[in-house]
Amino acid sequence: MKQRIIKTAQITNFKWINLFRVQYLNSKNKVCDWVFASRKKSPYKDDAPDAVVLVATVDTPEGRKLVVTKEYRVPIDGYEYGFPAGLIDPGMTVEQTVEKELKEETGLDLVKIIGKSNTVVSSAGLSDEKVVMVFVEAEGKLSKRYQEDTEDIEAFLYDVDDIRKLLASDKKIGAKGWGVLYYYSKIGKID
Amino acid sequence: MKQRIIKTAQITNFKWINLFRVQYLNSKNKVCDWVFASRKKSPYKDDAPDAVVLVATVDTPEGRKLVVTKEYRVPIDGYEYGFPAGLIDPGMTVEQTVEKELKEETGLDLVKIIGKSNTVVSSAGLSDEKVVMVFVEAEGKLSKRYQEDTEDIEAFLYDVDDIRKLLASDKKIGAKGWGVLYYYSKIGKID
Repeated sequence: MKQRIIKTAQITNFKWINLFRVQYLNSKNKVCDWVFASRKKSPYKDDAPDAVVLVATVDTPEGRKLVVTKEYRVPIDGYEYGFPAGLIDPGMTVEQTVEKELKEETGLDLVKIIGKSNTVVSSAGLSDEKVVMVFVEAEGKLSKRYQEDTEDIEAFLYDVDDIRKLLASDKKIGAKGWGVLYYYSKIGKID
Repeated sequence: MKQRIIKTAQITNFKWINLFRVQYLNSKNKVCDWVFASRKKSPYKDDAPDAVVLVATVDTPEGRKLVVTKEYRVPIDGYEYGFPAGLIDPGMTVEQTVEKELKEETGLDLVKIIGKSNTVVSSAGLSDEKVVMVFVEAEGKLSKRYQEDTEDIEAFLYDVDDIRKLLASDKKIGAKGWGVLYYYSKIGKID
């Protein structure tokens, strides 16, 4: 790789997100500028994911269903449909975060982790945010009582028809969820 | 919806991305703060997508293939694998942007637009960035000669085996592309 970061400056000093300005050498050997948002104190230190995103299924008497969340999101002043997700706190493993976020956001219990994606970047022109998609089996009853005070999430168990209706609607869908929802809508089953 | 934006303040003044601080009323009637990144001059003005993301296929003598891009991204100081994409410039339609970005980033020509997603939000806790996923058929030869000076993109035509190898690798994959790649890897064909 010819490109190289020359200098990084932190522009703002908020708790959850900041802008960073970077000087870098591009592939044509020219010094350029880039500004991006990061949740990290110092970007470029490691490649660890910031968050987990859960593709969670629950076996019900009516068949296997997918856990879909509806969450008020300030940046879009509206609801985002997507999957349970959460930041990986310092010292927590991916597995611990999966169990914690599943319980908090949906009330469900983790049965087992089925698989994990490689590193998925949310929007790599805009931010260094990285996530890992984790496929899990869950059980129990949906409940809002484990949510943190700042959270405002409703969870649903969707079958394929529900997913198709969501994809055909004008509702806003999170990028990390959209492709998986598209997959289930196309294959016509949740497995 | 009980939640309501009370006040928005622009914190920085860069060309492509800025931080905004918002005061809002949450669903429990409490005034809270949120900081997020936006590409817009004034967030909340409209719900128009910022960008298009292209799921482009090309018919080759070896069968139908998917256009996958590898792009150096400053925020991750590395390559992102994903799909051709681009911001919708003022006055441009989604369709015009699709044709322009396909040519610029890959050298390919648009044959036709097959379908479009509803609004997909990149990372709605972090940013108001919205995109539309556009499925297209393309033709022609891959070429880097139409790229802008600041772009550093390599395009490939991937079959299902290539996609499976990519998903099993440690390469970083863009969130908007990951689910679609997952879909093709699972159904075992590109159609």
